[in-house]
Amino acid sequence: MTFVTILGFIAAALTTGSFLPQAIKTIRTNDTRSISLFMYLLFSTGTLLWLIFGMLSSNMPIIVANAITLVFAVIILFYKVRNQKKRNINK
Amino acid sequence: MTFVTILGFIAAALTTGSFLPQAIKTIRTNDTRSISLFMYLLFSTGTLLWLIFGMLSSNMPIIVANAITLVFAVIILFYKVRNQKKRNINK
Repeated sequence: MTFVTILGFIAAALTTGSFLPQAIKTIRTNDTRSISLFMYLLFSTGTLLWLIFGMLSSNMPIIVANAITLVFAVIILFYKVRNQKKRNINK
Repeated sequence: MTFVTILGFIAAALTTGSFLPQAIKTIRTNDTRSISLFMYLLFSTGTLLWLIFGMLSSNMPIIVANAITLVFAVIILFYKVRNQKKRNINK
């Protein structure tokens, strides 16, 4: 494995794994006020398209990385939408 | 251009562009309470490594996408760190 390949793996692990602490924080605190709804709508849709892209081009690293990221992103999006709805009801 | 390639471009545009509304929200509100510091530390480092990976493998789409994402991520990280410091001083 070349240095560049190893670098790619580390980069993928970091960007994929980075959504885990955000998901944990969101679940623990149930606070999503400063999180952008629009960001997670775009990001989740993009990650889903990356997943389909990976499947159609049989690219396993893209499939694995985006499947994991999608789970974290959808959890955060779910909390954000739920809290947004609550806030609208309470208005 | 094949369907799969177009799908990849749309996916890249969405995941890259998704950090713009978060950066705008963060700058406007200066509220980073529900944002995970650890997420943006990992994510910014990962994006920087992707950028270096793209440069070393002369992959223009990877370079462009990650250069843009890195700018947004670092803005959000900067606000988060600044607010965290303020909070620690006020304790």
